[in-house]
Order: sequence, then structure tokens, then C-alpha cells
Amino acid sequence: MSLAELETPVVTLDLDVVERNIAAMQRYCDEHGLALRPHIKTHKSIELARLQLEAGAAGICCQKLGEAETMLAAGIRDITIPYPIVGAAKAARLTALARDADITVAVDSEVSARDISNAGAEVDVLVDCDTGFGRTGVQSPDDAAALARMVAELPGLRFVGLMTYPTLPESAAWLRAARKAIEAAGLRVERVSGGGTPAARFTHDRGEVNELRVGTYVFGDRACMASGSASLDDCALRVVATVVSRPTATRAIVDAGTKTLTSDPARGETGFGLIVEHPEAVIYELNEEHGLVDLSACPSKPAIGDVVTIVPNHACGTTNLHDELVVHRGGAVEGRLRVAARGLVR
Amino acid sequence: MSLAELETPVVTLDLDVVERNIAAMQRYCDEHGLALRPHIKTHKSIELARLQLEAGAAGICCQKLGEAETMLAAGIRDITIPYPIVGAAKAARLTALARDADITVAVDSEVSARDISNAGAEVDVLVDCDTGFGRTGVQSPDDAAALARMVAELPGLRFVGLMTYPTLPESAAWLRAARKAIEAAGLRVERVSGGGTPAARFTHDRGEVNELRVGTYVFGDRACMASGSASLDDCALRVVATVVSRPTATRAIVDAGTKTLTSDPARGETGFGLIVEHPEAVIYELNEEHGLVDLSACPSKPAIGDVVTIVPNHACGTTNLHDELVVHRGGAVEGRLRVAARGLVR
Repeated sequence: MSLAELETPVVTLDLDVVERNIAAMQRYCDEHGLALRPHIKTHKSIELARLQLEAGAAGICCQKLGEAETMLAAGIRDITIPYPIVGAAKAARLTALARDADITVAVDSEVSARDISNAGAEVDVLVDCDTGFGRTGVQSPDDAAALARMVAELPGLRFVGLMTYPTLPESAAWLRAARKAIEAAGLRVERVSGGGTPAARFTHDRGEVNELRVGTYVFGDRACMASGSASLDDCALRVVATVVSRPTATRAIVDAGTKTLTSDPARGETGFGLIVEHPEAVIYELNEEHGLVDLSACPSKPAIGDVVTIVPNHACGTTNLHDELVVHRGGAVEGRLRVAARGLVR
Repeated sequence: MSLAELETPVVTLDLDVVERNIAAMQRYCDEHGLALRPHIKTHKSIELARLQLEAGAAGICCQKLGEAETMLAAGIRDITIPYPIVGAAKAARLTALARDADITVAVDSEVSARDISNAGAEVDVLVDCDTGFGRTGVQSPDDAAALARMVAELPGLRFVGLMTYPTLPESAAWLRAARKAIEAAGLRVERVSGGGTPAARFTHDRGEVNELRVGTYVFGDRACMASGSASLDDCALRVVATVVSRPTATRAIVDAGTKTLTSDPARGETGFGLIVEHPEAVIYELNEEHGLVDLSACPSKPAIGDVVTIVPNHACGTTNLHDELVVHRGGAVEGRLRVAARGLVR
């Protein structure tokens, strides 16, 4: 079966490209002595997590406990959760996970650290550092050292290092200062974990970081293309859609809207995806099941019934909308891949 | 069990409010002689579709064939699909549906009409009219009349009327001109179907329309509040989330991001949802599992571990991310509701 025979809209994945992306990032990490710890948030697939581990990954990352539980049930035993675990219920689930797996968790507050310790969890702990992005994380190297000392004293918790997201040019100095303050307190900083696909290949140059957490690299998307971290050929995940209406000379409607593509933007780009066959087209608006396309700049314009291929703005959000992806190699369909951890937001 | 005992993030639905919303819209339609045809895209739930029909709805709308197949399998037999059906595979599925159900479909092109007829479908057909919104639909009343005549001559297709989305102030004159042109050709215009929650209550004033297609009214959301079509008390669907990080004096991170709330905007509002307990807070950015909240304007600021209630920007997109909703009445949990047609984009 070929992709052209599939009913649309459908999310397709070129397994040749996925394997190439996995191998390339692993090679980069190996060359620079970085531990690669892929983030499964992008694919939420057991099979792809296994491919990443078989290629040499040190373990995986899961953002939510539900994802980690799914991966552990499939036999994956080295899992880092770089996300704040807060409250007795979540801490109890973490404790249960840690009985059967090697769990590392990131904390950025005393509350989270105490909740985890009080639940009886036996886990490795990274201190989450806000080195400039402005999301979670302690706000200064001294705060990192203080939290590291506290973690080291809490029963069940083993302080193992630092974590930041993403790895910014300014992250290295921050992390170095934190490491020195922590070492001065007599603790060892074994792992310094950085992340983010856009700047992944600069990690070795930025210093301090010895572990790379990346997700999107495995699929690639329009945002990766905009940031220069992927070429069109690296984009394994694509949405095949049909032109279902051509109301005017310059407007087309495709059967993929926010419920197929998400309304996620791609930084530096306008619109909601790249139409490969008509790169001049602009998907200028999405409704739930409609993609509104401006064809003004297209030398040839698709007709009703024509099938088009869209590189989505954001692969992770797109995958998350669908129960399965159609897997192919160069257009020959091989089967379907279950998005096993889809919807597990808790 | 109370909502406070649920693990977060979790999507909750107040059934008292849902029932009140259903009754109020039905009453409005009954008072003004409009047929109410709720759009199940908002809830994708068999149980809620049944509630709407029991309250007096004339039938339901489904945007995609997969949704219609799910509803028909549950015994719902009067279904309108106001979405272009294009291609042999889709037309064959429509034909199969129409063997067991009363199916109406909207067309805006000769291609779609011929595909449906060629597949042997026996269906009622509305001509989709672009009365100003700029999405699908024929572009002029004369074009509507020409397509109506064509539809009336195609085997299996029965022309029954006109459809537009949304019902705009300028829609009535457009639809009146189309109706007159069609009647002049000797055809009857039985149904004139308008839609959209924001202006639903103006439908009777705008004229011509005798059927109302609405979806979001059943749940309400922040966009409905912004458009004046719902109050906070009308918003049945809410996301309960936990503050998992308080990195600075004015920043909080909640455990609900785009994979819980969507990145859909609410026209006229900034940010990604309304925090009921802290209405001055701004959810200024969402990552996949992080909601970034600016607390600068909040007189009291939530702490790590505090639970907050978010009215999402867009109820339909939010529901679509989750397999089930937690149903309650005034905070007392009654059970879970399956989002049966979630992910059925084909």
C-alpha cells in the first residue's frame, strides 16, 4: 500500500528518516562524550523508545508519571522525570515506579523534595536550574546549592546533579557556579543535564552539560526547520491531507485543522504548517477540522480532491492528537504505530 | 468524592450546568421556531448527544464521518454533516451511513456532489454558502442556485436547502437572494441552517435561518465569555490543575500545558485560560505540560501544591485532548464520561 491510498487526514512517519535521526543524534553525543536521554514526549511510543535505547541512549525522559508508568510496563527501566512532582498522590506513584525502575526526578522546591521523601521514594534527584529560560527552576547558583544540600539530607533522595532547559549560551557559567558551590559543600555533581532540540548540536561547545535531553529531533518539524536544527528531509512526521474545497481562485480548504495539526505556532514562521508540494502556500488559519490555505503565491494551485503533504509546526503536539501513526519507508506503508502514552497528562 | 481529591490535571464537567445550557438553548430555539441541531464536536460524547436529543433537538451535527459512525453505532439516526465529503473512499462511507440513518450533507462544489452521487448515496443535501466568513461555501447566491440545480439532478441526492457558518448580520440578505434564485428554478428550500455559539441568540433577528447548528454552548468557555454568549457560571468545563513550581515572587507554573488546554487562543483575550480563584493571573505561555502564570496583579498568590480551576480558552479543543471527563454536580463527583469520538479526524 502506498501513502496515496490512505484516507486523509492521516499522520505518517517515515521510519528510514526516524532511524537516521536517532543514529545522527546518538553519533553526535558519542563523539562528544554526552549521555543521550531522549524525551519520549515527542512520540509517546514504546517501539520508538526502544529504538532510541538500542541505538545507545542512556535512558529516557518522561514528562508525566503516566508516561513513565507506560514505559516501565513495557520494560524500560531507566527513566528521568524532569518535571516537578508535587503532592502525596503523585509522590506515592513515583515511589511505586522507583521500586521497579531507576528513577531520577528533578526538583526546584523544598515542597517537592519533601513530598517525594515523605512518600518513601528511593530516587536520584537533579536540582532544576532556571539558567535563563524563565520556566521552572531555582533562580541562582546559591539557591541550587542550598536545595542540593537539603535534598542530600532527605531520606530516600540521592542528589546526583543539575538540570536545565534549554541549554542556553549563558547556561554554562550558571551551571559552573552552581557546581562549584555544591562541591564546596562536599557533594558530588555527577550529572549535568541540558536539553532542547534547537540548540542540541551546540551542547558540547557550551560546556558543563554532560547529558542531553531531546525529544523533537526524532521526528523533526517546521519549528526545527526554522531554528536550523532540521532540514525538510529530516522531517519524518507529516500529515497527509486532502483539498476538500476551493471556494475562490486563491483559497483552498484542507481536511486538517487544529484537531489534526494543533494550533501550536512555529517560532519565526507564519501559519500552521508547510505544504511540501506547494511551499508558497500559506496555511493562514486553522479551525477545528478546516485548514485555510492562501494559494495566491502558488504557481500551480491544487484542485478539490488533490492530496497534499504537510510538515506540521510542532511534531510533539501533532502526535499527541492521534492514537496511531502510519509508518512507512519512502512511501511504502509498513504498518501502524501506537501512540501508547497519548493523553496521559497526569 | 470531591473535585479536590482528584489527581491533576483533570478536565471536569458540571452536569448541572450542562443540563441548564442544553435546556436554555432548546428553549430559545423553541420560542423562535428554530430547529436546534447541536454539533457534537464540542463533547464527542454519546451520552451528551442523547441529552440534547431528549431535550428536543432535531438531530445532531458531526464534522467528520468517523464521528457520525460512532453516533450512529450508538443509535442516533438523524445526522447532518456540514463538511465537504470528497473522494471515493469518503463517499462510500457516507453511502453506508445513509443506509442506516437520515443523513444530510453539505456540498460547496460539483466535485463533492458528483463523488457522493457516484457512490450511490441516498442523502439530503444542503448547499454550503459563504455569506461572509471566508471559509468553505459557494461565493454568490447565483452560484448557490446553480449548485442547487445540479444537486437536484444528480441521482440519490435530494436538495433540501442552504447552510452557512457562522450566521452573520449580512447572512440574511445573502441567503434570501439565494433562496429566491433557487425557488425561481422551481426547487423548494426547506432548511436554511445557520450556526455558531457566539451569535446564536441573535439568529431569530437575522432572518432566513430556520435551523441552528451550535456546539460550544453546551460547555461554555473563555471565548464564549469574551463574546458575551456565556457567563462564568455557564462554563461547565473546567481544568483543575496544581501549582507545581513557584520559581519567583510573581511566576507560577501549573501542571496544565498545551497537551491539557490546547494552544487555541480566545479572541479578544490574552493568555491561555482564566484561573477562577485568581482572575488577575495571566497564563501567559503554555509549553506542552507547563502553564506559565504571571501573578503580578494577584492580591493573593497561590503556593506550590495549591489547586486552581481553569476555564479553558476553547472547550472543544480541550475535550478533544482527553479520553474522558470527570462529571460532577456542584463539586460532588458522579463518574466519568467517555469522549467517544475523540481523535476521529477522518
